[in-house]
Amino acid sequence: MKFDIIHKDSGTKARAGVIQTDHGTIQTPIFMPVGTAGTVKAVHQRELRDDIKAQIILGNTYHLYLRPGLDILEKAGGLHRFNGWDRPILTDSGGYQVYSLAKTGRKISEEGVKFKSHIDGSTHFFTPECVMDIQRRIGADIIMAFDECTPYPCDFSYARTSMDMTHRWLKRCCDRFDNTQSIYGYQQTLFPIVQGSVYKDLRIQSAEFIASMEREGNAIGGLSVGEPAEDMYEMTELVCGILPANKPRYLMGVGTPENILESIALGIDMFDCVMPTRNARHGILYTTEGVINIKNEKWKDDFSPIDERLGGYVSTSYTKGYLRHLIKSEEILGAQIASVHNLSFYLWLVGQAREQIIAGTFPLWKAEVLRKLTCRL
Amino acid sequence: MKFDIIHKDSGTKARAGVIQTDHGTIQTPIFMPVGTAGTVKAVHQRELRDDIKAQIILGNTYHLYLRPGLDILEKAGGLHRFNGWDRPILTDSGGYQVYSLAKTGRKISEEGVKFKSHIDGSTHFFTPECVMDIQRRIGADIIMAFDECTPYPCDFSYARTSMDMTHRWLKRCCDRFDNTQSIYGYQQTLFPIVQGSVYKDLRIQSAEFIASMEREGNAIGGLSVGEPAEDMYEMTELVCGILPANKPRYLMGVGTPENILESIALGIDMFDCVMPTRNARHGILYTTEGVINIKNEKWKDDFSPIDERLGGYVSTSYTKGYLRHLIKSEEILGAQIASVHNLSFYLWLVGQAREQIIAGTFPLWKAEVLRKLTCRL
Repeated sequence: MKFDIIHKDSGTKARAGVIQTDHGTIQTPIFMPVGTAGTVKAVHQRELRDDIKAQIILGNTYHLYLRPGLDILEKAGGLHRFNGWDRPILTDSGGYQVYSLAKTGRKISEEGVKFKSHIDGSTHFFTPECVMDIQRRIGADIIMAFDECTPYPCDFSYARTSMDMTHRWLKRCCDRFDNTQSIYGYQQTLFPIVQGSVYKDLRIQSAEFIASMEREGNAIGGLSVGEPAEDMYEMTELVCGILPANKPRYLMGVGTPENILESIALGIDMFDCVMPTRNARHGILYTTEGVINIKNEKWKDDFSPIDERLGGYVSTSYTKGYLRHLIKSEEILGAQIASVHNLSFYLWLVGQAREQIIAGTFPLWKAEVLRKLTCRL
Repeated sequence: MKFDIIHKDSGTKARAGVIQTDHGTIQTPIFMPVGTAGTVKAVHQRELRDDIKAQIILGNTYHLYLRPGLDILEKAGGLHRFNGWDRPILTDSGGYQVYSLAKTGRKISEEGVKFKSHIDGSTHFFTPECVMDIQRRIGADIIMAFDECTPYPCDFSYARTSMDMTHRWLKRCCDRFDNTQSIYGYQQTLFPIVQGSVYKDLRIQSAEFIASMEREGNAIGGLSVGEPAEDMYEMTELVCGILPANKPRYLMGVGTPENILESIALGIDMFDCVMPTRNARHGILYTTEGVINIKNEKWKDDFSPIDERLGGYVSTSYTKGYLRHLIKSEEILGAQIASVHNLSFYLWLVGQAREQIIAGTFPLWKAEVLRKLTCRL
């Protein structure tokens, strides 16, 4: 993997870059749609590529490991071949899902995590080593270290103990990763994850440790888990100041359009979040004019396009009134339209941010666009 | 509306024709995807047009009347403007849904049918007159008469009484239809419906009555409701022999690929059925090689395209193994892929039938294709 910064904003820490992978390039800052079970929910691969203009998508290790399972994925030739998405894929480590989905009977120890499948209740055991092997077999371009994502709030003592274990696990991840290789012939790379909850000294300690591992890119985890936005920004700024500037920085699970723009300004290059797709299915739309709850009565006879300025088939061909009818009627097409629209908006947002960074107009544009985007229409 | 028969098969009663409407032409024989609530479930309008190659779709009067409601549809400028489908639309009369969905508290009288909404339990009253007005306001190109669709089995006495009322209702439909006009500036036409259950003498009587009304097209109702296929074909053949040959014949709610080919051979020009979309959502796929239950274990590592011979993005880009994973995981994309595929297959089937009729090779082709299509793979 290769990362080149092509422009740095002078007013903020924002940067525009290019990541090169064996499945093609990624223009940063970038938002990565979440494709939990090998599909970005309600979105065709063709729509991801041509309408949304996604450059990289996520897969969830926990879900893919349980279903369809590694044998099938490997037999298909990896996740890219399995789902027909031939651009870059990043997989998470499964840690987050193990903690949040498999609450019953999960048990964390130094060795790893024992958990029960939310599908059939069967027992499984994830270790740093096996999670590396799993992601190798899934075939992700970017593989995430196995960490513990602490909840919010989290007391200092737990946060420190957890962070220390995450660091020990990281060494095991790196060892395993460096002693194995891609089984599909293209390069894979491992990103470690900074933890430390909302405690400055832990975040500093973790960022320094992660930086010392000298991987090709670095991630910040454990944020956007319920803490105040100011804490998220403070931790992000602190950590970005320590992580190497010449490598991509990925802020995991973030966030709202506002969170994304603020974090770009702090030096973040990569984002992922279920918000655009999950909210879409519940009728919350992000538009260039502000946020819309399409279930509101006021949209029932509004026959203007969802978002003319955004462009694209879905946002300009379907009207607000029609989409409201579909969402209220719980029609699948409602989820489809809203999902393509919201993801198009997120990709538009980071694409615009990139252009403004290159043009040297990012801070001004950001202030202006935030005023609009945080409106509730 | 104008109907021209461009070729008649010499070995069967099949014919190839063209229906002209103010929203464009329809090449017959044709299959009409069902868009119950103003959407063909899980299918984008662009996919209907470009991938499936649908020429006309159905809307359900009962559903559209309840939600979004006529005020909104009229304010949008009719259903075409509301849902963005600018080709022909046919609406049913709502009768079938009133009988099957609003079972609780529905009451049929000479005047009409009182029923309760399955959405909120509110009481409504449909008469032949108001159903004409409703379909005028929905803005369908082809409007169906308000009839009673008798269930199967149905005793002779009930079938005769019901048929007689359907005939009296038809006169009221025609009166109302002929004394009102389109509110959107394009022509609308009314199709009456032959009833009579599986009783030959009733079907003859009904077909003669319907023919005598001299409308621009005619429909056959009350079949494909559970009766043996032989009864369906026998009634269809009988009725086709009486309905005028120079007008389109529409066999309502039919059916399997086999039903469709057999009925084309009997002189039917138009079909609709929820089968391709409903079965799609449950993982039953129609392919050029036969019928597939994609949930079966055998497809889990079959990475061949869903149906290479059918062509089209969905059928050739996604694999059986991937689709199986999506359907088993209850992912929305599974319903999307299977729905576009099955409808593409149905439109391919009637399109092929048309070409074979024109080429004079229909009977031979039909025998050959039926051998394949009825295979369970």
